[in-house]
Amino acid sequence: MKEERILLHHGSGGRLSRDLVQNEIVPVFDNPALRRLEDASPIESSKGRMVMTTDSYVVQPLFFPGGDIGKLSICGTVNDLATAGATPVALSVGFIIEEGFALSDFRRILASMKGTADSIPVPLVTGDTKVVEKSKGDGIYVSTTGIGTVPREIVLTPLKMRPGDAVVINGPVGNHEASIICARNEFSLQSTVVSDCAPLHGLMKAVIENVPDTRCARDATRGGLASVLTEIIETSGYGITLDDESIPVDSDVQGICDILGMDPLLMANEGKMVIIVPAEGAETCIRAMRKSFPNARATIIGEVHDRAPQLTVRTRYGTSRIVTMPMGTQLPRIC
Amino acid sequence: MKEERILLHHGSGGRLSRDLVQNEIVPVFDNPALRRLEDASPIESSKGRMVMTTDSYVVQPLFFPGGDIGKLSICGTVNDLATAGATPVALSVGFIIEEGFALSDFRRILASMKGTADSIPVPLVTGDTKVVEKSKGDGIYVSTTGIGTVPREIVLTPLKMRPGDAVVINGPVGNHEASIICARNEFSLQSTVVSDCAPLHGLMKAVIENVPDTRCARDATRGGLASVLTEIIETSGYGITLDDESIPVDSDVQGICDILGMDPLLMANEGKMVIIVPAEGAETCIRAMRKSFPNARATIIGEVHDRAPQLTVRTRYGTSRIVTMPMGTQLPRIC
Repeated sequence: MKEERILLHHGSGGRLSRDLVQNEIVPVFDNPALRRLEDASPIESSKGRMVMTTDSYVVQPLFFPGGDIGKLSICGTVNDLATAGATPVALSVGFIIEEGFALSDFRRILASMKGTADSIPVPLVTGDTKVVEKSKGDGIYVSTTGIGTVPREIVLTPLKMRPGDAVVINGPVGNHEASIICARNEFSLQSTVVSDCAPLHGLMKAVIENVPDTRCARDATRGGLASVLTEIIETSGYGITLDDESIPVDSDVQGICDILGMDPLLMANEGKMVIIVPAEGAETCIRAMRKSFPNARATIIGEVHDRAPQLTVRTRYGTSRIVTMPMGTQLPRIC
Repeated sequence: MKEERILLHHGSGGRLSRDLVQNEIVPVFDNPALRRLEDASPIESSKGRMVMTTDSYVVQPLFFPGGDIGKLSICGTVNDLATAGATPVALSVGFIIEEGFALSDFRRILASMKGTADSIPVPLVTGDTKVVEKSKGDGIYVSTTGIGTVPREIVLTPLKMRPGDAVVINGPVGNHEASIICARNEFSLQSTVVSDCAPLHGLMKAVIENVPDTRCARDATRGGLASVLTEIIETSGYGITLDDESIPVDSDVQGICDILGMDPLLMANEGKMVIIVPAEGAETCIRAMRKSFPNARATIIGEVHDRAPQLTVRTRYGTSRIVTMPMGTQLPRIC
């Protein structure tokens, strides 16, 4: 019998990632908080409602247009907390550094983390540093954990979704993945695409304040818009139809997708929040988003319905296609 | 000018590790919680006193006598919380898995983590899984973060130490590192040494209940007894003298040390808590330790004094030697 092994696709954010988590990990540690499979998990505590989230960052290259692994690790963790409507309270970081890594690069990463954390602001309260032998790592891996507090009245979950709800996003998709692909220079693509890497706690706060009956939110990272919407659909039991023409994609990102045969819906973002709100709150949601990100092209991209619980995209030609979660990555992992 | 680079010794728990943290990391993120350099950091929150700790595990081999990387990651995090007198509330885990890692090994590690977490008990509430390309990892790296609550009346810190206080440990030192060295089989040492890897939250709870004026505690992991006591000395400003003959070392561990020229004081442990208590509470502390670990050889190993703030060992020949924090590891990293 062939031994089962971990594949790169198990880390892609696609179906194999989900299978690994749902079939191997969650059943072992089975508990209500973990079972929810939210980006940020509630912590049972007499002290009030707190949430906890964790992520490891293995991006290459470590420095890319618009960010670096340090900024990414803080934004990613803060954004996972934001999906629960949480205000970040404290962060921790674990570094796994490869022997021989340049101290100057380490300093750049630390400074970037500090700058991003201060902009939130959230303190980094504890950490750990391990060094592994040359060729047992990839420069540096960063694992960040965040805890945050959530006001008692805020409960964001796909279970609150109703047919007719609007799907809103705060700007164009695909920029992070496109910038990483170009920075790797594997395809000799000249481009000015910059990662959208940004903290979204302020944006979420503004949305929740202005649209109190916001249903749920997800930051569309690994696996892209298609993966997070597929997860939302599975939890809610409702379907979502996106309007292809309304999904913002920058022209240079679209160009890279056209050349490489990639789908922007599957591309990773690091500063995009997908939020489900009641239809009547959609315009207020967009105004709140624009207040946080004045230049962002926040827009309604789709609708929740009670037909088949699947993700459908209405094309500009009037046809429809069903989008399924990808098995793995479209290209080598980028976050 | 030669570029400064990260060395393996930066990850050893010795002086280079401390320098990296104190000179490079803490100044960047400067805040009161981080500056304390405790194993578990207090979180400022209106919700009460909470602490947070994080650690990355890169041990090789992944499975060793007495434990594995999964059990180690849970024990290490729970023990760091225990040093603050905290009850664990929730854990998170981040896996960085090398492409091609056997799923059966991953399952063994998950089961081991679950078994250990249940024995505490503490829930694992959230996690993340990343896969890196073949040869960019070492099987699996595990990063765990724990949060815990501390009763308001419990404040453990070396600043509470006073001359005359007793230094107590819950059993023999060096077993974890010796077991790893033998499991690696690099020196063809036949041995039955088993890692002491164990959760110590119950032991700490018993000590604090029975000796309410317990000063402080540290789990003597990377860098061994010498490193944690050096840290305690630096924070408190007091010196510590250990009595060589009273430091428990198993005969097979001593044998490995003799063959390889290693010092048990510098060897890593994963189930040893060093606790500083007032002299009159020392016997009560030992009785409380023995109640949690019936077979452990808990004992007084030294004394706090107001002479030079350094670590001194009184040898069996009546002489004294000063122990300084090692620059790096004695041998390849083992935890």
